[in-house]
Amino acid sequence: MRDFLPLETRRRQYLIRGFREVYERYGFDPIDTPALERLEVLLGAGGADNEKLIFKVLKRGESLSRSLESKEELSDAGLRFDLTVPLARYVVEHRSELPRVLRRYHIGPVWRAERPARGRFREFYQCDVDIVGAPGHSAEVEVILATADALREVGFGSFSVRLNDRRLLSALLASAGASPELHATAVIALDKLDKIGWEGVGAEFTDRGIGAGVLERLRAMELEAVSTLPVREALSHLAHKMGSASEDFESAVRDLGAIALDLGVARPNISLVVSPVLARGMGYYTGPIFEIASQEVSLALAGGGRYDQLIGRFAGQSLPAVGFSIGFERILELMSERQMFPESLSGVDAFVTVFDAEQRADSLRLADELRATGLRVLLALQVGGLKPQLKEANQRGARFALIAGPSEREQGVVQIKDMESGEAQNVGRQEVARHLSGAINRAET
Amino acid sequence: MRDFLPLETRRRQYLIRGFREVYERYGFDPIDTPALERLEVLLGAGGADNEKLIFKVLKRGESLSRSLESKEELSDAGLRFDLTVPLARYVVEHRSELPRVLRRYHIGPVWRAERPARGRFREFYQCDVDIVGAPGHSAEVEVILATADALREVGFGSFSVRLNDRRLLSALLASAGASPELHATAVIALDKLDKIGWEGVGAEFTDRGIGAGVLERLRAMELEAVSTLPVREALSHLAHKMGSASEDFESAVRDLGAIALDLGVARPNISLVVSPVLARGMGYYTGPIFEIASQEVSLALAGGGRYDQLIGRFAGQSLPAVGFSIGFERILELMSERQMFPESLSGVDAFVTVFDAEQRADSLRLADELRATGLRVLLALQVGGLKPQLKEANQRGARFALIAGPSEREQGVVQIKDMESGEAQNVGRQEVARHLSGAINRAET
Repeated sequence: MRDFLPLETRRRQYLIRGFREVYERYGFDPIDTPALERLEVLLGAGGADNEKLIFKVLKRGESLSRSLESKEELSDAGLRFDLTVPLARYVVEHRSELPRVLRRYHIGPVWRAERPARGRFREFYQCDVDIVGAPGHSAEVEVILATADALREVGFGSFSVRLNDRRLLSALLASAGASPELHATAVIALDKLDKIGWEGVGAEFTDRGIGAGVLERLRAMELEAVSTLPVREALSHLAHKMGSASEDFESAVRDLGAIALDLGVARPNISLVVSPVLARGMGYYTGPIFEIASQEVSLALAGGGRYDQLIGRFAGQSLPAVGFSIGFERILELMSERQMFPESLSGVDAFVTVFDAEQRADSLRLADELRATGLRVLLALQVGGLKPQLKEANQRGARFALIAGPSEREQGVVQIKDMESGEAQNVGRQEVARHLSGAINRAET
Repeated sequence: MRDFLPLETRRRQYLIRGFREVYERYGFDPIDTPALERLEVLLGAGGADNEKLIFKVLKRGESLSRSLESKEELSDAGLRFDLTVPLARYVVEHRSELPRVLRRYHIGPVWRAERPARGRFREFYQCDVDIVGAPGHSAEVEVILATADALREVGFGSFSVRLNDRRLLSALLASAGASPELHATAVIALDKLDKIGWEGVGAEFTDRGIGAGVLERLRAMELEAVSTLPVREALSHLAHKMGSASEDFESAVRDLGAIALDLGVARPNISLVVSPVLARGMGYYTGPIFEIASQEVSLALAGGGRYDQLIGRFAGQSLPAVGFSIGFERILELMSERQMFPESLSGVDAFVTVFDAEQRADSLRLADELRATGLRVLLALQVGGLKPQLKEANQRGARFALIAGPSEREQGVVQIKDMESGEAQNVGRQEVARHLSGAINRAET
């Protein structure tokens, strides 16, 4: 697990702040849930697959002794491995206190007991928006717009939205000869297409007991070519290809068309792609699924979809839901590599030196005055030569160092030293705050 | 453990934002550490007392089987129970990447396997500022000023700073006849004085093997009366009472005097109190200790002190450190009870209704335009009568509902309905954003 140094922490805060601001504009409400969930909740909603990913918390005291004796489960709680399962529990538990349609965002850590690898961590942040309680395509449009705006807010300019639908994917698999009970496992294999290619998916299909004919027939459909067509044509091409398919297939095509239409109205510049091989790994999706991919680095930045059954497993009644999750850690890495963070994130505005113990009170007053104007100001903590103080100022990235020795005091001025250029100028004691605020605002605009 | 509803979450975010802003002004750097720490770290630094408080994470796979067989410890990691032990580990681990003097803040969750009670939770936030690497009293002054300003930032006006020093307390205990090896346990008992009174402390002393004479002699010193004196007099009263005490005692008096002098320069309005019975529970304090207490509710809002040995236990060499921790959950509760949160925290600015499916695109454009100006805007997700939409607008605390049916469209206007007064007025379609921004700014100033 990772520690974060100050600069890394500031970058994480910068992202969170940017995403949050956009979600708020869309009227999403923040919520929070505990890190620990009851094990039955984590394992309940299809989480059994995830059991080996869960950090389990040891029972305590007598409860532990009893379980050791009777060789029962030694844990009754675990760290959440995503923010969706806790949301499902939360919605059911607080139904009466929540609006009928819950638009919520949640940015926070989750934990997975996986072997760490590049870009994969045992503790990492997820960043989700979800709308619970609204069927139909309007909710999809809201989460897609909010996510696209959130990515734009932190500096991503050119990206495309890839659209598909689990019902459409199922119809394709059925028409390729896969029986319905194999669709879920086929989706997991297809999800790896980008990484392992059709050969790899073929091997996965064999491992998963899906006949080789299915793969051949899928490839013969030339589904990837559909992605090159404009949305409307892509959808009618698919409808034509499938002939009179299931009602589910037709609903999928209708929903995707409606989503694309709305997105076209609101963001004509975003490129929309129908990608019938887009699978998204999670088992719980039931309708439209989507990704936002950066066009420059061909990486998925966010992924999501509709999952109308998951919450029902907790609620005992189906409750429509749709969500979009931003790949927080991936974006952080990408933005660091590509130097997309503003420079002003680190560093402080001024470092106030202390000439000697007697003049510490003056320095304290000066620092205090500057802080009151909102400037970020360090005050030297150890009296001693000027040199180590200027070294600290430099190390901490201070823009200016303020110096007031006996001669400056006598003249009623403070020496303001620009730490980058090395230039120094004397400014009247009463003018220091105004002078610095001005210099710093000028530099930022 | 607790879920947080949207309003509660916003209140937590409001506090975090306020505290962070002030810490930044003082040049404190944010850092973050993982929720899970190795068990040896948690138990290392005097944490053995805390062992029963730790949520331990179960080992996995073969490692678990081996430990079960050989009846070894079933866990090698646990959830952090504070932010100070992780800081100590962090400083040692990243020494070469950190500034020589580290001023850091950390606001985040910690976990304790305690029985929940009023104001005591199994998962709760701590909010700490610490300065590592600076001896002397200047660092104390910085953490006290930053904490006082942070409390002021979120609305606390009148509070007092209570000062004491562990070396002073030790000298008092010694002069009351307690042998040095009993000082640590005596401090834990004295820490409860506010709650259980001298009688209770006496009982605790007996339990802890401290002779009854010690208590009598302590009480005879009338230490609480010292708190009523101005700082300088309080300190010379104590010095006089103790006569020629240890060097440690004299350093304590000198440091407290210097801290009080600086605080007086920077914040002449804050009431300063020397409180020789102030103990602060933690075992690791070595010098000045302090609390900020609300004068209105006589509750400690924050507590801290100098701990020059703790980090040394990890570093193998002593490293001076001082910290101040705000009682995040307590303050949250207090502010909720006393309605100190701004009203505008909850709710959205506008709810855009959708007249029918055909006009959804228009509504989407309108919502989008308003969001681009920074307003918080909900868009109706389900088409249907106006009534359920207005009900939702009301439930979500929208200030205005926007309505555009066929007649409004024909006239090129939008109806803006003030959800509080019920008044409605038609505004030209192009004027809506400007009109709403104006109305909302006016209401906020």
